[in-house]
Amino acid sequence: MSRLEVTEKIVAAKVAKGLKWADVAARVGMSKEWTTAACLGQMTMTAEQARVVGELFDLSEEECKWLQVVPYKGSLPTAIPTDPLIYRFYELVNVYGTTFKELIHEEFGDGIMSAIDFKMDLAREEDPKGDRVRIVMSGKFLPYKTY
Amino acid sequence: MSRLEVTEKIVAAKVAKGLKWADVAARVGMSKEWTTAACLGQMTMTAEQARVVGELFDLSEEECKWLQVVPYKGSLPTAIPTDPLIYRFYELVNVYGTTFKELIHEEFGDGIMSAIDFKMDLAREEDPKGDRVRIVMSGKFLPYKTY
Amino acid sequence: MSRLEVTEKIVAAKVAKGLKWADVAARVGMSKEWTTAACLGQMTMTAEQARVVGELFDLSEEECKWLQVVPYKGSLPTAIPTDPLIYRFYELVNVYGTTFKELIHEEFGDGIMSAIDFKMDLAREEDPKGDRVRIVMSGKFLPYKTY
Amino acid sequence: MSRLEVTEKIVAAKVAKGLKWADVAARVGMSKEWTTAACLGQMTMTAEQARVVGELFDLSEEECKWLQVVPYKGSLPTAIPTDPLIYRFYELVNVYGTTFKELIHEEFGDGIMSAIDFKMDLAREEDPKGDRVRIVMSGKFLPYKTY
Amino acid sequence: MSRLEVTEKIVAAKVAKGLKWADVAARVGMSKEWTTAACLGQMTMTAEQARVVGELFDLSEEECKWLQVVPYKGSLPTAIPTDPLIYRFYELVNVYGTTFKELIHEEFGDGIMSAIDFKMDLAREEDPKGDRVRIVMSGKFLPYKTY
Amino acid sequence: MSRLEVTEKIVAAKVAKGLKWADVAARVGMSKEWTTAACLGQMTMTAEQARVVGELFDLSEEECKWLQVVPYKGSLPTAIPTDPLIYRFYELVNVYGTTFKELIHEEFGDGIMSAIDFKMDLAREEDPKGDRVRIVMSGKFLPYKTY
Amino acid sequence: MSRLEVTEKIVAAKVAKGLKWADVAARVGMSKEWTTAACLGQMTMTAEQARVVGELFDLSEEECKWLQVVPYKGSLPTAIPTDPLIYRFYELVNVYGTTFKELIHEEFGDGIMSAIDFKMDLAREEDPKGDRVRIVMSGKFLPYKTY
Amino acid sequence: MSRLEVTEKIVAAKVAKGLKWADVAARVGMSKEWTTAACLGQMTMTAEQARVVGELFDLSEEECKWLQVVPYKGSLPTAIPTDPLIYRFYELVNVYGTTFKELIHEEFGDGIMSAIDFKMDLAREEDPKGDRVRIVMSGKFLPYKTY
Amino acid sequence: MSRLEVTEKIVAAKVAKGLKWADVAARVGMSKEWTTAACLGQMTMTAEQARVVGELFDLSEEECKWLQVVPYKGSLPTAIPTDPLIYRFYELVNVYGTTFKELIHEEFGDGIMSAIDFKMDLAREEDPKGDRVRIVMSGKFLPYKTY
Amino acid sequence: MSRLEVTEKIVAAKVAKGLKWADVAARVGMSKEWTTAACLGQMTMTAEQARVVGELFDLSEEECKWLQVVPYKGSLPTAIPTDPLIYRFYELVNVYGTTFKELIHEEFGDGIMSAIDFKMDLAREEDPKGDRVRIVMSGKFLPYKTY
Repeated sequence: MSRLEVTEKIVAAKVAKGLKWADVAARVGMSKEWTTAACLGQMTMTAEQARVVGELFDLSEEECKWLQVVPYKGSLPTAIPTDPLIYRFYELVNVYGTTFKELIHEEFGDGIMSAIDFKMDLAREEDPKGDRVRIVMSGKFLPYKTY
Repeated sequence: MSRLEVTEKIVAAKVAKGLKWADVAARVGMSKEWTTAACLGQMTMTAEQARVVGELFDLSEEECKWLQVVPYKGSLPTAIPTDPLIYRFYELVNVYGTTFKELIHEEFGDGIMSAIDFKMDLAREEDPKGDRVRIVMSGKFLPYKTY
Repeated sequence: MSRLEVTEKIVAAKVAKGLKWADVAARVGMSKEWTTAACLGQMTMTAEQARVVGELFDLSEEECKWLQVVPYKGSLPTAIPTDPLIYRFYELVNVYGTTFKELIHEEFGDGIMSAIDFKMDLAREEDPKGDRVRIVMSGKFLPYKTY
Repeated sequence: MSRLEVTEKIVAAKVAKGLKWADVAARVGMSKEWTTAACLGQMTMTAEQARVVGELFDLSEEECKWLQVVPYKGSLPTAIPTDPLIYRFYELVNVYGTTFKELIHEEFGDGIMSAIDFKMDLAREEDPKGDRVRIVMSGKFLPYKTY
Repeated sequence: MSRLEVTEKIVAAKVAKGLKWADVAARVGMSKEWTTAACLGQMTMTAEQARVVGELFDLSEEECKWLQVVPYKGSLPTAIPTDPLIYRFYELVNVYGTTFKELIHEEFGDGIMSAIDFKMDLAREEDPKGDRVRIVMSGKFLPYKTY
Repeated sequence: MSRLEVTEKIVAAKVAKGLKWADVAARVGMSKEWTTAACLGQMTMTAEQARVVGELFDLSEEECKWLQVVPYKGSLPTAIPTDPLIYRFYELVNVYGTTFKELIHEEFGDGIMSAIDFKMDLAREEDPKGDRVRIVMSGKFLPYKTY
Repeated sequence: MSRLEVTEKIVAAKVAKGLKWADVAARVGMSKEWTTAACLGQMTMTAEQARVVGELFDLSEEECKWLQVVPYKGSLPTAIPTDPLIYRFYELVNVYGTTFKELIHEEFGDGIMSAIDFKMDLAREEDPKGDRVRIVMSGKFLPYKTY
Repeated sequence: MSRLEVTEKIVAAKVAKGLKWADVAARVGMSKEWTTAACLGQMTMTAEQARVVGELFDLSEEECKWLQVVPYKGSLPTAIPTDPLIYRFYELVNVYGTTFKELIHEEFGDGIMSAIDFKMDLAREEDPKGDRVRIVMSGKFLPYKTY
Repeated sequence: MSRLEVTEKIVAAKVAKGLKWADVAARVGMSKEWTTAACLGQMTMTAEQARVVGELFDLSEEECKWLQVVPYKGSLPTAIPTDPLIYRFYELVNVYGTTFKELIHEEFGDGIMSAIDFKMDLAREEDPKGDRVRIVMSGKFLPYKTY
Repeated sequence: MSRLEVTEKIVAAKVAKGLKWADVAARVGMSKEWTTAACLGQMTMTAEQARVVGELFDLSEEECKWLQVVPYKGSLPTAIPTDPLIYRFYELVNVYGTTFKELIHEEFGDGIMSAIDFKMDLAREEDPKGDRVRIVMSGKFLPYKTY
């Protein structure tokens, strides 16, 4: 057994049962963003979180243990994603990558926005010209150490 | 002459003159995010915007014309960026890619968040445990056409 | 179970039963282009469409549910396709890519032709020197937002 | 001197002079699609076509000779294009590649749509919900030879 | 079931039964070159050809149907082949690629040698200094369309 | 100076002077296939051959010396060629690679067709349905040594 | 001018003048590890540090400004380094990568060792069986945020 | 059976039994770094070490034999690791690669730090600003042989 | 069944039985280098050799037939090997590749060292400073044909 | 100036002057294998060696200094070499890679053949069936450290 198999079981159970990530998150007591990433094999759960998820998706005790093991992260099958929705994010990195870099350095100096001490919120933004996806990202600025 | 040469000239002039993107943006009358991307060869300027930028960076008339030509976009030298700041964004796509996909589809159905009808805002978020980078992205949801 | 397995089952059933995509499309009530893409795991069906497809290809109820889940898109096993028919389309992108870019920008300004709000029609074009494949593509022009 | 240098000179001259591809095509007496591709180093001109293009872009006699040499084709700097407009065409090949294959084989049997005996027409399609890009492609069907 | 599985079954049956491609071809009534390629999953058979091949290799009726479906072509596991015999052909393309190009254009003008309307013949060429492999390729010249 | 620069000078001189490879070959006294490959930097010339080529293309004495140095071979800028004419040969390797392998092994046993003790002849094959390119390749069979 | 050109000038000046990194570091007042990385275009200097480095390597005022601009990081020409000394470090990541992961997670839980809040010290370790390279790395542990 | 299967069995047994690498190492009598790497399929065990590991993880006799076979090393599924923890080490090689090279050559001359005659120690470094990961690497310096 | 499965069975049987390649070679009556390569799926056996190998490794009659089929060669899972022992050979090609080329051409003129009419011998070389691996390679020189 | 430029100057001077590597080596007093590699930018010279080489190839004092700097090694422009002579060595690694691994481990246990404490000798081996290239490689065996 591996974490990948547990992830596939969760995804299949979600389809079979017609669950929603937002409802799973409410049961787990965490945000829908973190909960979805955790169920998709990118985050590590506590024993209690794993128990709740295990109940929702009919996981065995051993499968619940896997949810508490730190996974090998990275959710994409290719370095450049083929799926159009995910590719658009890759495209943003490609088109705006140097802009992110310039503006963060201008504001903070040399360093990075952490992808670890990081949270995000994804929501619908109503708009008469067509609703929009709104994503708020917040990552701690980490200055480069000099020594 | 090519747009790449104009971009390099702008970057070099910015270093030599010690300009800030925020000030360039104020002069151009657009956001700092769009203005920086445009100066880095990713967006297309109007004649008036190009005139202002040309003055700030001592560009020739022909160089100003290039700023009004739609550029070949993509600002990174490799498919997987080596620069740590930019890589963190690539990592977010890799770790959270399937999460973006699940949550947007759960909320909107099949479709994508546009990377064209898109805007963003990058700002400092003060925090006693260390200031954070806050990025608000807003892209129009585009549903897949069925026919 | 996964969407890929459902796709493989559909393809195998089509061979075994000798069905035609045009007939499947007529039963589904959509174009043959959209229907084929949907059966090959690139589009999302409604419950009713999935029911019809399920009957035609002897799918289980759970398999029909998978047809209603947004798939991870991208139908090719390699970034550069090896199949000669599909490669010719890649070659068109490679040879005519900058031409598409120049002419769309000349007509519309900076922006893209949407691959989401997109439809196409593929038909035989009779010709005494040898019949031709005629493909009409229509995608909404999306102008780059400035902000 | 190389064909690439001539292409770059044409592109730079077009920016400096503010020419339009449609006007160049009218002078050359060919479609705007073929003419643009030819000027961008993807097609081969006759002596007369080269003379006209040479006059429009102030090319030397030797440069005009290069326009009559069959070029090494392929207009993109990377196998997967980074430019958003061109990428959308790559995405269509990726998402619809197997659909193209199924439908052409269903209609014609084993073979390909030629990318050589090929023509296309790109035009604006007016639409109250937003104008569209319409591309009509026509390529001769070539059946696989059996022997 | 898939075409790949049928190919693997044919290859395994050939080893077990000790058949020769030349004999298979004689039974099918086509050249050994086309027949081998077809059995290896690169060409499409008629019902009658599939029946003969099915008898020789003990295929089921469903497997024979797969032989009549146009396959996804490309027989190599990597873009640059590792097998020394096949690599030598790749090497010829690499070393002589520009030579092929120059000589075909010199003789025919802009266009290609078709790999679809193509046939070949592979035979032993006796030579006192060591026998040679002789391959005669014949592909229709296809001129680039101008329009 | 490098061999690449000499190759580029030869190619440019050929365009400027309107020479034909067949005529160059006649002057050099070798086949057009070998001569073209040699001029394109893939083969090594004798002093006398280099002298003749040097006269035809106005090369300096030092440049003629480079023609006598064994070059670093490989004439293509990418592992998978983008040029349609050259790609068709790559496609033949991909589609027919395993067929070449099977038939050569069936006739000769384990070994390869040499790409070094190799010659080829490329000619027009007249055909009422459209002329064809005919390529005759002849490479020595080299059996794998056992020891 | 670009940061890369300044780096190349520093490296060339170091060879010409026979300077040592340890001495440069002593003059700059930082560790030899940080100083070398900064001179090689991977870290950002203060105005004072840049002044000292500029004097040592005869840099112009504009070149000194570039040393204060945050560079695009990544010092290697290929994703997998060819240089044997650097490759050994890549090999350690490949062979010990999962070991690093297991042990850090066992000790700290889910998170990473920062490569930003990071320092290192490289020294000779005398050993009668042959001296050894000793590298002490210290990076802050960053726990994954849950939210 | 293969070494990979034994590794997967060990990893799964560790999750099911809740073992710790440090405890496994104590039982084996080697460092936790070497023991973890060995259990993950990167090092070769003696018969006695394999016996102890086999008992801890309920391995069969044949599985214990595999632990004594030299494995095909390399623990990562992609050349550039996607897992954030492991990527940070790759990033260190990328950012500090030329620095490692300069400083080792400055101290020792031409040669490398061995990744074979190599050991390391990974420990927690307490720090009021946040604990740190401390890794001490020690590899024998191997001078390039001249001959 | 495929040759790969036979190879895996041989490797597994060798571990289970504790055989040595040198002993297998003695039984087969060929060198240990050729015999090992043949057992690992890179060379083709005669019926008699396959019989002996089949007995040693408990292969079925059909598996013995596979040993007599010419395999698809290439023994490595990635183009650049990750295993340290094998990588060192790749590194030698990378560091000494141009040296091999220069010295072979200096001695023999244009041509190659055959990897087909090739044999090698690998042995221990005793040395008081540490024993060495000694490999003697011998490949026929093949001159480039001119024609 | 860079080491690459010095290498190119040496290669060009060798062509212009018609020198032989064997003679250069005799003057330098080292083997032809090491000397060639050093002149091609893969090894580091002493001041005296650099002086001799500088005289032979008319190098400036600064260029001679570069010969004494440890170079960034790796002599090939692509990861898989296109040049046929060099490719044959890559092919040997690919075909015989696992054989090298098995036989060295069988003789020495876990470890590698050093590519650093390494020497080689390349010579003509006379043979009535055609002369052969004979390469004797000798690398120190380095056992994996356990700790």
